Formats: sequence, structure tokens, C-alpha cells
Amino acid sequence: MEAEMEKEDELLNQSLQSRTLAMEKVRASRQHLILVASLLDRIPNLAGLARTCEVFKASTLAIADASILRDKQFQLISVTAEKWLPIIEVPVSSVKHFLDKKKREGFSILGLEQTANSIPLDRYIFPKKTVLVLGREKEGIPVDIIHMLDACIEIPQFGVVRSLNVHVSGAIAVWEYTRQQRSQ
Amino acid sequence: MEAEMEKEDELLNQSLQSRTLAMEKVRASRQHLILVASLLDRIPNLAGLARTCEVFKASTLAIADASILRDKQFQLISVTAEKWLPIIEVPVSSVKHFLDKKKREGFSILGLEQTANSIPLDRYIFPKKTVLVLGREKEGIPVDIIHMLDACIEIPQFGVVRSLNVHVSGAIAVWEYTRQQRSQ
Repeated sequence: MEAEMEKEDELLNQSLQSRTLAMEKVRASRQHLILVASLLDRIPNLAGLARTCEVFKASTLAIADASILRDKQFQLISVTAEKWLPIIEVPVSSVKHFLDKKKREGFSILGLEQTANSIPLDRYIFPKKTVLVLGREKEGIPVDIIHMLDACIEIPQFGVVRSLNVHVSGAIAVWEYTRQQRSQ
Repeated sequence: MEAEMEKEDELLNQSLQSRTLAMEKVRASRQHLILVASLLDRIPNLAGLARTCEVFKASTLAIADASILRDKQFQLISVTAEKWLPIIEVPVSSVKHFLDKKKREGFSILGLEQTANSIPLDRYIFPKKTVLVLGREKEGIPVDIIHMLDACIEIPQFGVVRSLNVHVSGAIAVWEYTRQQRSQ
């Protein structure tokens, strides 16, 4: 009886170990890019970003409220991306704490926002370990978070209309990060 | 009486001339990029592309049915982009004729589509005069149009989920074209 239990324990340990290894392998194959979408409100934007992050294998997507993953509209747009992409919950009140933690882990903390000091996207070289903060749909990134950033990036815009949708601008920034990593 | 009419004619001519000059100036400041979205069905995608094309000053957006410009949902998403961006009507049945015409005008005719022969977006140098054809939401670009293309471009995708929204992939391609033109 005891021998049987020991054998089962051993099997369980082996399977746990191989699962951990598999998870690590999946994680290792992802890019070192964390997208913070906690400030965003609209489900189509969040679901679209989940899909785009999975396509480009970002390491993590942070959202304010993980319960939206069960939302029908979210699932329709994300096309199962949430099953593969690591999505973590970082409520708006915890964003600064989260960014501080990532900074200590060696990540550069960037914001995608039009400010007087923003660097055009095609003039910026992304560090490998990047956290990219996206702004709220209308108001953008609040000032107290802007002050924490290592740099602000902006997408050069030329038309009379100068406002890209936040999912689209996030996708362009993730592409540009990916393009740069591939060229190295 | 006759002298007065002559003077008015002259004024009219002058104002017409200056209007033509102003229009040409506006047109000249746009990029030589024509986006063909005639195969697309969904209004959010078409309206989003109008907004993105205006932000990056594409020269023209072709759509299958211009009546959607009066659609409430279109106007909500496009945020007045249709007032500034030249939008032309190219019905699905006329797409091949349109592409032929542009080819004769010296444009390269490209498609954004995943095929066995597609060139990854970051390995392709866009010609200045580019027509970019986007595929239908589910089915992509039909074979008879694929055969007319000078090249097919694809966005490299890495995740388990490998399908970007057509507005997002169009926006990434327009950004990449813009980035290349700016770097020259």
C-alpha cells in the first residue's frame, strides 16, 4: 500500500515537473514585452489587444478587471487569444505599484502618448525588456503615471484628424517592437 | 455692363485657379499610397481604416459602396476622416479594372495576404507609388486578384492564434510604408 502511494507521488511529481518545464518553454518563446491596458475601458479594444498580443507573442497583457474575459463580446473578438496569452489583473489603483516592481526587475517603463517630450516611434530603439503603458480612450495616460515613465513614445501623425484608435496605435507599437527585435 | 461682367469673370477665374492650386497642394502633401478596401464588408473596419488612412495621409481609400459614408456607425468611428481623406468608390466588380489602370500609371500593385509566396512585411521595401489591396474579412483576397499582384506581403505572426483583424493589419502595413518613406 505504502509502496503504491510512493509510486503515485513519484508519478505526480514527474508530471508536475514536465508541466512546469512545458510552461517555461512556452514562456521563454514569448517576447519580453508587457502591455499594460489597465487604463482602457472599452471591451472591443481590450479583446482586440489580446488578439494582437497573442499574434506577436507578447509576454503578458495587464488588464484592470479579469472578469471581462468571460464577456461574450470579448470572446467573440479575441478569438481564443486569452487561452494562450498570459493575461494578468492589475487594477487601476495598482498600476503604479506594478510599474515600480517591473522597473526593479530591469524593465524599461514606456508610455504611448502624445506629449511635448514624446519620441517618434520610428526614432526610438526599444529595449528588449519593455513595459508599454497605453492611455485611457479619451484622456490618455494620467500625469502621475507619465511622471514614472522612462520615456514617452508617439506615433507620428500627419492628417487633419490626429487620433488613432488605442488598439490600432498599441498594435503599431507592438509591431515596431517586434520588427526591431527581429532585425537584431 | 460688359466691362463689369468681364471683371467678374476674371475674379471667378482667379478664385477657381487659387482653389485648384490649394487642392493640388493638399494632394501633393499626401503620400503616394492607395488603399483598396473594396473587398471589406464590415463598417467598423472600413471606418477605422478611413481614420487610419487620414492620420497617415494616404492619397486615397477605395471602398465598394460610398453610401456607407452616410452611415451613423461609420461616422462615429471615422471621426470626420472622410471629410479630408479622398475616398473613391470602386465596386468589387471593378477592382481588377482599377488595379490595371493604376498599374499603367506606374503604381506597384500589392496584396496583404498570407500565401506560400508572401514576403514578410519587414523584409519588403515599399515602392513610393503603392496600391495595397486588403482581403475580405474571412476569405481574404480572391485568387483572380492574387494573380494580378506584383507581390504579396504578410505580417509575420507567431502565436497559436494567427489572425489579425483586417483594420489592424492594414494599419500596420500603412505604418510600415510610412516609416520607410520617412527614413529615406
